[in-house]
Amino acid sequence: MNICLGIDPGLARLGWGVVAQEGYRLRALCYGCIETSPKILFSQRLLEIYNSLNNIYLNLEQEPDFMSIERLFFGKNVKTAEFVWQARGVVMLWAAQKNLNIIEPEPNQIKLALCGTGGADKQQVQRMVQRFLNLDEVPKPDDTADALAAAVAGLAYDGAHT
Amino acid sequence: MNICLGIDPGLARLGWGVVAQEGYRLRALCYGCIETSPKILFSQRLLEIYNSLNNIYLNLEQEPDFMSIERLFFGKNVKTAEFVWQARGVVMLWAAQKNLNIIEPEPNQIKLALCGTGGADKQQVQRMVQRFLNLDEVPKPDDTADALAAAVAGLAYDGAHT
Repeated sequence: MNICLGIDPGLARLGWGVVAQEGYRLRALCYGCIETSPKILFSQRLLEIYNSLNNIYLNLEQEPDFMSIERLFFGKNVKTAEFVWQARGVVMLWAAQKNLNIIEPEPNQIKLALCGTGGADKQQVQRMVQRFLNLDEVPKPDDTADALAAAVAGLAYDGAHT
Repeated sequence: MNICLGIDPGLARLGWGVVAQEGYRLRALCYGCIETSPKILFSQRLLEIYNSLNNIYLNLEQEPDFMSIERLFFGKNVKTAEFVWQARGVVMLWAAQKNLNIIEPEPNQIKLALCGTGGADKQQVQRMVQRFLNLDEVPKPDDTADALAAAVAGLAYDGAHT
């Protein structure tokens, strides 16, 4: 069995999901979304993300073998990029502290792994997350679905590499 | 006495400097530069930065009252921004864990505080760092001098606020 923690990095909402693979079978072990309030200081929001990751990790029945975290791309919208990247840095640090190997798929690599094309739209990706993980509905919010997509893609690429 | 930890965020080189203010007198207590190698994994470099900050903090004779960390501005060079911002996120998290108040001066605010104009060049800032702190020479590398500049500016703005 191979277990991957998928992360969709963000400051206001950070999606996470743990997916196990046995043979061809994928199973979502648990998933959710860490939310931080814009009413508290930025550095406190980073601390909340860090502490929440620790809590999630403590409550996992099985430790993940690795983390798959989306590589971010921003066009000219560097204003939000600044904060999302700093949040991503906190997740990367946290993973290093947990000795987790890290895979950083690009958005189009995630789409390719789930939908067969790097040009798939968001809805397509979400439908494939639901299908691969045999879920009754698409996980909400989008950040959670995106984190599970990162985990599924991570398992696909990890398997391909080993 | 008011003590400020100044930080010039970066991935390959992260400058730091601790400056104490008594009345009008400024004194550099200690300063240096955390360097991480491009030969190790990005997440390991973040971990090195985090652990180095902890070591520096442990060895301080007096705890800083607050941190002054430069707000970053990148033009179109978003490639390096990505990594520097993630490193900055690690520093912000660390400061939150240490319960440090944080001031985030913009580059032109630092220049204004040290040189009297937001349009001062790098050399002017470095000369004023040397003068304010009464140092025999400009601290090297530039990152260390920039961190001390952030600390001096932080103390100027902090004093102005209280």
